[in-house]
Amino acid sequence: MPGDGVHRVVVVGGGFGGLQAVEKLRRAPVEVTLVDRRNFHLFQPLSYQVATGALSPGEIAYPLRAIFKRAANVRVMMAEVAGFDLGARELQLRSVAGVPVPATLPYDSLIVAGGSQYSYFGHEEWREYAAEVKSLESALLVRGRILAAFEAAEFEPDPERRAAWLTFVVVGGGPTGVEMAGQIGELARDTLKRDFRAIDSRTGRILLVEATDRLLTTFPPKLSSRAKRSLERLGVTPMLNTTVTDIEADAVTVEAAGGGSQRIPTRTIIWAAGVTASRMAATLGELTGAELDRAGRIAVEPDLTLPGHPEVFALGDMVRVRQTDGSVVTLPGVAPAAMQQGRYAAKVIEARLGGRSTGPFHYRDKGNLATIGRGSAVADIKGLKLSGFLAWMTWLLIHLWYLVGFQNRIVVFVRWSFSFFTHGRGARLITAQAMERPSDHHAA
Amino acid sequence: MPGDGVHRVVVVGGGFGGLQAVEKLRRAPVEVTLVDRRNFHLFQPLSYQVATGALSPGEIAYPLRAIFKRAANVRVMMAEVAGFDLGARELQLRSVAGVPVPATLPYDSLIVAGGSQYSYFGHEEWREYAAEVKSLESALLVRGRILAAFEAAEFEPDPERRAAWLTFVVVGGGPTGVEMAGQIGELARDTLKRDFRAIDSRTGRILLVEATDRLLTTFPPKLSSRAKRSLERLGVTPMLNTTVTDIEADAVTVEAAGGGSQRIPTRTIIWAAGVTASRMAATLGELTGAELDRAGRIAVEPDLTLPGHPEVFALGDMVRVRQTDGSVVTLPGVAPAAMQQGRYAAKVIEARLGGRSTGPFHYRDKGNLATIGRGSAVADIKGLKLSGFLAWMTWLLIHLWYLVGFQNRIVVFVRWSFSFFTHGRGARLITAQAMERPSDHHAA
Repeated sequence: MPGDGVHRVVVVGGGFGGLQAVEKLRRAPVEVTLVDRRNFHLFQPLSYQVATGALSPGEIAYPLRAIFKRAANVRVMMAEVAGFDLGARELQLRSVAGVPVPATLPYDSLIVAGGSQYSYFGHEEWREYAAEVKSLESALLVRGRILAAFEAAEFEPDPERRAAWLTFVVVGGGPTGVEMAGQIGELARDTLKRDFRAIDSRTGRILLVEATDRLLTTFPPKLSSRAKRSLERLGVTPMLNTTVTDIEADAVTVEAAGGGSQRIPTRTIIWAAGVTASRMAATLGELTGAELDRAGRIAVEPDLTLPGHPEVFALGDMVRVRQTDGSVVTLPGVAPAAMQQGRYAAKVIEARLGGRSTGPFHYRDKGNLATIGRGSAVADIKGLKLSGFLAWMTWLLIHLWYLVGFQNRIVVFVRWSFSFFTHGRGARLITAQAMERPSDHHAA
Repeated sequence: MPGDGVHRVVVVGGGFGGLQAVEKLRRAPVEVTLVDRRNFHLFQPLSYQVATGALSPGEIAYPLRAIFKRAANVRVMMAEVAGFDLGARELQLRSVAGVPVPATLPYDSLIVAGGSQYSYFGHEEWREYAAEVKSLESALLVRGRILAAFEAAEFEPDPERRAAWLTFVVVGGGPTGVEMAGQIGELARDTLKRDFRAIDSRTGRILLVEATDRLLTTFPPKLSSRAKRSLERLGVTPMLNTTVTDIEADAVTVEAAGGGSQRIPTRTIIWAAGVTASRMAATLGELTGAELDRAGRIAVEPDLTLPGHPEVFALGDMVRVRQTDGSVVTLPGVAPAAMQQGRYAAKVIEARLGGRSTGPFHYRDKGNLATIGRGSAVADIKGLKLSGFLAWMTWLLIHLWYLVGFQNRIVVFVRWSFSFFTHGRGARLITAQAMERPSDHHAA
């Protein structure tokens, strides 16, 4: 391909933003290479459902090659980005799973959509005890820990230790934290209620720790309080104005805003607070002088390119966008924002090849959705505030619609319908990767 | 429970045999404890489909607690068996995943259904390079290796090394080996045919190495040759009368029966030869003096009990059965044999409690089935020999029928129907556990 004069676009990241960019470029006169560490696209808004056994990994992940198999100008490369040579217009690659990818990959246009990951507020040592549910592997780990905690409680003779096994702490009251706490509530109250003989799973305590004074701060206050009430009905105890100050193998220490610290014995902690941009943002910041914010996001120009490098785009969770008036805005870290940016970057590349100019990127807010449990959600769509069953149906249809892969939509629909009517969860497996608890190899 | 006079039955192993024993005892006047290292029943005849991305783990595995949640006299215990004290009638347990199970578990009747695993003919070092597909974890490992091999071939510039990535060697021409080779054939010829740009996945070589002179030796010769022809149509090369003499990270050395050794460069080797009984068979043999055969199976009495211990039953893949004439027979290592034995053991326990006596165990051969690919299978049912589409439909219906969990049947049916009509495979994910190749941490 190199040297034959066709414009070469390299897209880094097969998430929502990268996927839309490639999708839009498949009919353009360019050669596209999509680089990702994984061979699949993860429908990340549903990874929390894998973490509670409602869905299987194969239902929310789809092979990148399968998505683009009929796009003759698109090739997929499973590799890790090792660095950028912006002067030479080359990406440096590192091999994954033994795949002998080239060490460098030249480009004419580059789109970097590296996403974000959870940060632990400078306490990396907490990661081991408080897993997150953003990656598929971590979601499987969380699933194993939650299920094994109920198993352990069933056989624990000491009442205090049993109570610790039956205490689940979710840190962070954003959409992911709310969804996880709600799902654990359903698991304990409903799915598992007949599964045990010595314990009553319904006595499980689910604590949702949030530093600010309400849940779902990106929603209107009215929906925050509705979400809170729905969670309480599922047996979840929201702890507002409360910060986590320490995490150990067998406890979380929290501090209320008014003062007063308490150590809560628990064996299962789920982290859903504090997102930080992909490390590629910092690398690109160093190379171009573009500013970074505290969450590690790089500031891109109004057309999503890097300062001094109109051929390099960055987008999604790893960027903030400079407006034409010079101010820099942070867009919501949701799929539609990344998707719009991905399509925009592709459009700019196409326009340039056709000698046309384009205006700056403009974000269109499609609304905000979060689910709480069976038949319960909140939605804020262009000022229309929904909650309860109607919001949940909206959530269901939108998520099914966007689930990549026709087969997955059907399978997920079958599984969800079944779960809804029978309250069952088929994918409650504790697989080997989740068998080891951190306390097994550390002095607890 | 202990001490209240109710007869305590402990069942070890949640496979086909153990599950049927518990199922039959759920209405008997006994207390049942089902002990398994895993929290799920694995529908093992389909684990090879996970290994090729046709099915997800959650579709062939079902939580044991969910199966018995309405059986009030059954409790499930996730634990490993550490030993037996047959004199004291106690099982010794070891903790799994931090679950604080008791160290000993007393019983009045014990049913041991520990199954079997693959042996490597005394070459344990081969296990690392030649994974098997019997356990869910290993099937996922194989899936990652097969898919990553195609990824690697796509980017390998050296033609010889590329050919090695595109060579897949399956060792063992029994049902599992035939199924695996057929599935890899479909993957290469069909599912992946549009996925790559630099390679043609259809050029992949799939070798099926079998030591005897035909495939599927437990079937009539006519069906063996039909299976061979079907495999050849899928691009598989059966190598009969051929033994494996060495396995390395990047090659298999084989020897033809007539002499003549060749070293075949390959990066993906799948082991489907040589089964050995659970180690519990050897332990029970030492304790009771019951004889073991070369495959580690223990000889049980005509009523499936151990010599001198009428209260201890052993069954399934880990036993051979003494007949009333003193001879010892090996039953086929298939699900129906284990299921019949499980039900029999439960029946004997119930009969004894009611003061009735029972005859010896009698195996009823339900026939033999193996699938080769889409719409192709062989079946030998009470002398009726089927092959092709009809055999495949029979196979499909029987397997769906026996898939534990109503939801799983629907989901698997949706996925299979979809695969059948679109030739797609949704679960082609390379997840982290499969990312490391043995050659990564060994000098190759």
